[in-house]
Amino acid sequence: MLALAGYPLGLQFRFYDSSEGPASHLAHTQVGAFDDLEALERFAEGLDLVTYEFENVPVEAARFLAELLPVYPPPRALEVSQDRLSEKQFVQQLGIPTAPFYPVQSHADLLEGLGQLGYPAVLKTRRLGYDGKGQSVVHNPEQAHETWAELDEQPLILEGFINFERELSLLAVRNPDGQTAFYPLVQNTHRQGILYQSLAPAPNIADLQPLAEEYAKRMLLELNYVGVLAIEFFGDDLRVNEIAPRVHNSGHWSIEGAFCSQFTNHLRAMLNWPLGLSAPKGFSVMRNLIGHLPDPAQLSPDFYLHLYGKGPRPGRKLGHITATADSPSGLEALLSGLDETADPK
Amino acid sequence: MLALAGYPLGLQFRFYDSSEGPASHLAHTQVGAFDDLEALERFAEGLDLVTYEFENVPVEAARFLAELLPVYPPPRALEVSQDRLSEKQFVQQLGIPTAPFYPVQSHADLLEGLGQLGYPAVLKTRRLGYDGKGQSVVHNPEQAHETWAELDEQPLILEGFINFERELSLLAVRNPDGQTAFYPLVQNTHRQGILYQSLAPAPNIADLQPLAEEYAKRMLLELNYVGVLAIEFFGDDLRVNEIAPRVHNSGHWSIEGAFCSQFTNHLRAMLNWPLGLSAPKGFSVMRNLIGHLPDPAQLSPDFYLHLYGKGPRPGRKLGHITATADSPSGLEALLSGLDETADPK
Repeated sequence: MLALAGYPLGLQFRFYDSSEGPASHLAHTQVGAFDDLEALERFAEGLDLVTYEFENVPVEAARFLAELLPVYPPPRALEVSQDRLSEKQFVQQLGIPTAPFYPVQSHADLLEGLGQLGYPAVLKTRRLGYDGKGQSVVHNPEQAHETWAELDEQPLILEGFINFERELSLLAVRNPDGQTAFYPLVQNTHRQGILYQSLAPAPNIADLQPLAEEYAKRMLLELNYVGVLAIEFFGDDLRVNEIAPRVHNSGHWSIEGAFCSQFTNHLRAMLNWPLGLSAPKGFSVMRNLIGHLPDPAQLSPDFYLHLYGKGPRPGRKLGHITATADSPSGLEALLSGLDETADPK
Repeated sequence: MLALAGYPLGLQFRFYDSSEGPASHLAHTQVGAFDDLEALERFAEGLDLVTYEFENVPVEAARFLAELLPVYPPPRALEVSQDRLSEKQFVQQLGIPTAPFYPVQSHADLLEGLGQLGYPAVLKTRRLGYDGKGQSVVHNPEQAHETWAELDEQPLILEGFINFERELSLLAVRNPDGQTAFYPLVQNTHRQGILYQSLAPAPNIADLQPLAEEYAKRMLLELNYVGVLAIEFFGDDLRVNEIAPRVHNSGHWSIEGAFCSQFTNHLRAMLNWPLGLSAPKGFSVMRNLIGHLPDPAQLSPDFYLHLYGKGPRPGRKLGHITATADSPSGLEALLSGLDETADPK
């Protein structure tokens, strides 16, 4: 989607991936390991800058490339976000609320943490968790013990369970000149731990938007950030759950739903061009197509279809659909149609 | 732009061109002559269908491919539109107004035609004219004689001069099931014979739109048409100037200005999917970037930039810019900004 947004801007692309990805028809894909420095150096030759849209790129690869050419978002953002502990500490140090947490390196730590945070609590791997993987809610000492045994031998973090009424996310953008732009808060719902739907703008955010932007500004400044930053919040008290230093699934609605999409703005930011307007055009909903695809010929043309060229597999994000309307009620009507065609049960 | 619209629909592309074109990073481009039947056959292997977005593709190539797989729009539309005489006859036979015309094969025909149509009149080559090339207005017998000498030895057509107050164009779409969609009439202005600006919707078209759609329907039906058809009209009496069996420059505004762009709808039509909504979203203007490009970093981000990856050359369309607004006055404000940044004199 970055390349599709970038070609009309006159940009050229080259991809680096550990395997031939589903976007390899859009630009030359160099297949290589993320720790193959020689391959990375070859990849960087002749490029103006490098970005990433996968948050598990090793920080070492990003840092190595950053010696050769600009890498945006800055590798430190990647580093902070890859470790739930450093992420939480980063957020906390900026005076931004987050779930209470306790680092767990040993069984003693776990017991100590549970003593401090109480039940229920969430035990998570510090690294490489996504789409709800690598985490468990523990309600009692037995569960804590079982989970500990399952997730053993990697650094963990125990988090206080936040009984939030909704998840919100904010997409923020900054360019090297320091210009910033913020998309409206989006309301996300999940299924089996995977993002299922984003509603943009989220309902009733007038009181929340300024504070969310204030939190985002602190992070952007602290990281000397360039590009799109996604911030996930638990509930209307805007406790930060996690940050993602990249274009984000909860911003896909912006392709049709905002004047300038997150993809175009990520590129504009990195080029130090003036940022595009992040204001929404009406009301949008984005639904992920997970595991199976609707028949496009049966899908109402009121929905914008975005397929990623991936083969079907349970739990895999194969594409998404966006609908836009002038009013929330118009969107409701579209959504009931969407339930019928795109998501047959 | 077709490929950029098609990838999110899950489609794959292959290009055929007489030289490596500016879009060759978007799909494999097979370079070959349009009369190389063997190369065309190789090109068609494994494809589901073929379309064209250049109206001077030889009809023979389209007909040859149509023996192997569906070719949309139908080759007959290409044939009709490539010859100004057959085009005029086609329009006239459907009871649709056009400029009076007279075929010119000889000097005697020219004198006879001028006698019938009077001065001024326009002498045009029947084939391969575009962007104002291959035509001259003649005001008197001497000019007629000179133009005849210049354009000699090819089939010509003499047309009565239409003193039209504005040029309008309509984009129509039809799928094999017979479903049709029509974009609003667009008002076009030219510079040095090249399309410079399209305003969508054109002002004051409430009385014209139904008639324009009625004319388009007759053409679509007669041609058993599939895909996007562009029809250019001279003035509010909707005299057809020419038709183009393809996505059209005067429809580029629809990428941001309509719910479903002409490119997406052309693809949807060919796939026999339900057509997308052709209704405009507010008011749009499209300006071609001809000969030279603005600096994107200086261009207001209020404008959507579309570069084609072509090197600058006088008179060459290098890209376009689109602006959208909720009201005509909002669009006026954007346009005055556009004059300053995109088009410095």
